[in-house]
Amino acid sequence: MSCQGSGQTREFCLDKLSPLSYYRSMFQPAKTSTFPTIQEVWELYRPDLLNVESQIQKTLASEVPIINQVALYILNSGGKRIRPLLMILSAKLCPSPTEDHVLLAAVIEFIHTATLLHDDVIDEGNLRRGRKTARTLWGNHASILVGDYLYATAVAQGLSLTNQEVNLGLQKACSQMIEGEMVQHVHNSDLEIRESDYLRIIQYKTASLIAASCYLGGIVSGGTPEQKESLYQFGQSLGIAFQVADDTLDYTAQKQRLGKTLGADLREGKVTLPLIHLLQKCSEVEKKEVIETFKSTDPSERKFDDILDLMHRHGSIEYAFSMARSYVQKAMGFLAPFAPSTHKSALRVVADYVVSRDH
Amino acid sequence: MSCQGSGQTREFCLDKLSPLSYYRSMFQPAKTSTFPTIQEVWELYRPDLLNVESQIQKTLASEVPIINQVALYILNSGGKRIRPLLMILSAKLCPSPTEDHVLLAAVIEFIHTATLLHDDVIDEGNLRRGRKTARTLWGNHASILVGDYLYATAVAQGLSLTNQEVNLGLQKACSQMIEGEMVQHVHNSDLEIRESDYLRIIQYKTASLIAASCYLGGIVSGGTPEQKESLYQFGQSLGIAFQVADDTLDYTAQKQRLGKTLGADLREGKVTLPLIHLLQKCSEVEKKEVIETFKSTDPSERKFDDILDLMHRHGSIEYAFSMARSYVQKAMGFLAPFAPSTHKSALRVVADYVVSRDH
Repeated sequence: MSCQGSGQTREFCLDKLSPLSYYRSMFQPAKTSTFPTIQEVWELYRPDLLNVESQIQKTLASEVPIINQVALYILNSGGKRIRPLLMILSAKLCPSPTEDHVLLAAVIEFIHTATLLHDDVIDEGNLRRGRKTARTLWGNHASILVGDYLYATAVAQGLSLTNQEVNLGLQKACSQMIEGEMVQHVHNSDLEIRESDYLRIIQYKTASLIAASCYLGGIVSGGTPEQKESLYQFGQSLGIAFQVADDTLDYTAQKQRLGKTLGADLREGKVTLPLIHLLQKCSEVEKKEVIETFKSTDPSERKFDDILDLMHRHGSIEYAFSMARSYVQKAMGFLAPFAPSTHKSALRVVADYVVSRDH
Repeated sequence: MSCQGSGQTREFCLDKLSPLSYYRSMFQPAKTSTFPTIQEVWELYRPDLLNVESQIQKTLASEVPIINQVALYILNSGGKRIRPLLMILSAKLCPSPTEDHVLLAAVIEFIHTATLLHDDVIDEGNLRRGRKTARTLWGNHASILVGDYLYATAVAQGLSLTNQEVNLGLQKACSQMIEGEMVQHVHNSDLEIRESDYLRIIQYKTASLIAASCYLGGIVSGGTPEQKESLYQFGQSLGIAFQVADDTLDYTAQKQRLGKTLGADLREGKVTLPLIHLLQKCSEVEKKEVIETFKSTDPSERKFDDILDLMHRHGSIEYAFSMARSYVQKAMGFLAPFAPSTHKSALRVVADYVVSRDH
């Protein structure tokens, strides 16, 4: 089966209604890549990722069709399945991999998706990954309730493994994610926020679930306590790197690739690392200008570009990306106890990918 | 310690900042009551209910103060703790009561509270139990996130009992509650909805958690499979009775006692039993008038009173209350296998109370 008009021949079309086809096509190797690339990794672990896709689709079986429809809309909206991939690789790094990580990877993706649905209501977001958000299409009630449903389903699925360590790991991550989101809201529009506060927020709101993805992979694969702890720390550092990079991309990404409006954080009053750095480094006059733009309800594109220019001039963008890279290095350090292997190399590739997706 | 100016001497003041004091005062026996009254039951089980209060307060220990603040605001806003009381009584009805129902009663109340927080965002509600809703005071983000946090905390607390039957029971209830809410939204403004659909919705959205309260009480108290099933069925029928009564009170209650605007369901497009009955019984001319009022964005008080008059004339209010009472009878039938006892009598009192709170 080939797909006409896509510029290249692929085994399957990018059919939004057929998520498995979509992922099969995504996992095709890039013909021009040199090893190791993220495409190579996706190809190598394609069977595992497809198992996770099947698990996601078959688990969503509410007797209320609209719940499945809304959930699948966002679950099949082009997410990169980074957390499932990290869980697969972490599991394979440990002594006795089973198939339990397939179920758990779906659980993690459900939890992640639940937070996206709720975030869109909280932030009144209309676009995510270039598509209309669920709340735009079905309303706030659908986003809130389907988020709740995905979380309840995740918990129920987690329980099916009857592994207390798994369930407690999931719950810790969930509580921390919510706490991180809440602290972020407390600090909304707070231009005095310190870098350490910012890092703590993203450790909770983002890194805790990524850490859990790696840690849980270790649990269900006979990881030793030291290995599980290493995987947790790896995931935590990588999660921080991921969010720092994401926040920086909000200023620098190519609009069409990010799939959302640039400068969304600035417009929503989120004070992230590039801005924190800029406010520390710029002159008083520049600071006044930045604050004025920040406080205006809808800053013009020119005003936004002025801030971006200042960030480049004061090294704020480079500082933030450099911090993201340093957290990747820190993350890789935690994998030192694991002997070299294909899986470990793949983790390095994924780690680099999450901080260099779009720049 | 006595409280000045409250019209009667009580051991503790109704201090909103001291929930334990508040509940202690609520559980004081009514001096003029004749046995059995709900006040008598509250007095008899006061030590158990106070244990649940302590459990609620001590479990809420997020390191993010605003989460505890918002959660306690709604947890201490005058809810009657019907679900904890039903769990306590169900547990005591079984062969080997332990103290585990204290923790579980708090878990159930957390889940119930999480749904209230999310419902207020969904319905854009500004008043609950006569007080401003959390979303009015702190914003939608706080209501959504604290709801999520309460749910995550409930799951974590449930896990601490390491009882799979308990956890699966909780999860089933949560999934059904959400499904019921979602179907209710699908049927919003649907004047063709059948009574059977309505009953199915309230069975899911309301009765499932009340059924779980009773069932879980049985699980942690050595209930036999038959006893646990009886308690579940008791709770389910009682839950349906509760919601039918609640929906009818939305038309008939005394405004100040309900703590919210009368006719809220009508204004929000929720088609409940009195309206379903009226539309079946009234003339075509009356039906046209009812539909016109229903579809207007903000019906006047006079129009609302006209509908209430029609409901009284066609026996819709009596029909609905009668159905609530018949579900209470059905519920009590499920308790037949239990020998007569104080606890069983108390359940009868609570069952009657939930359908006769305000009329």
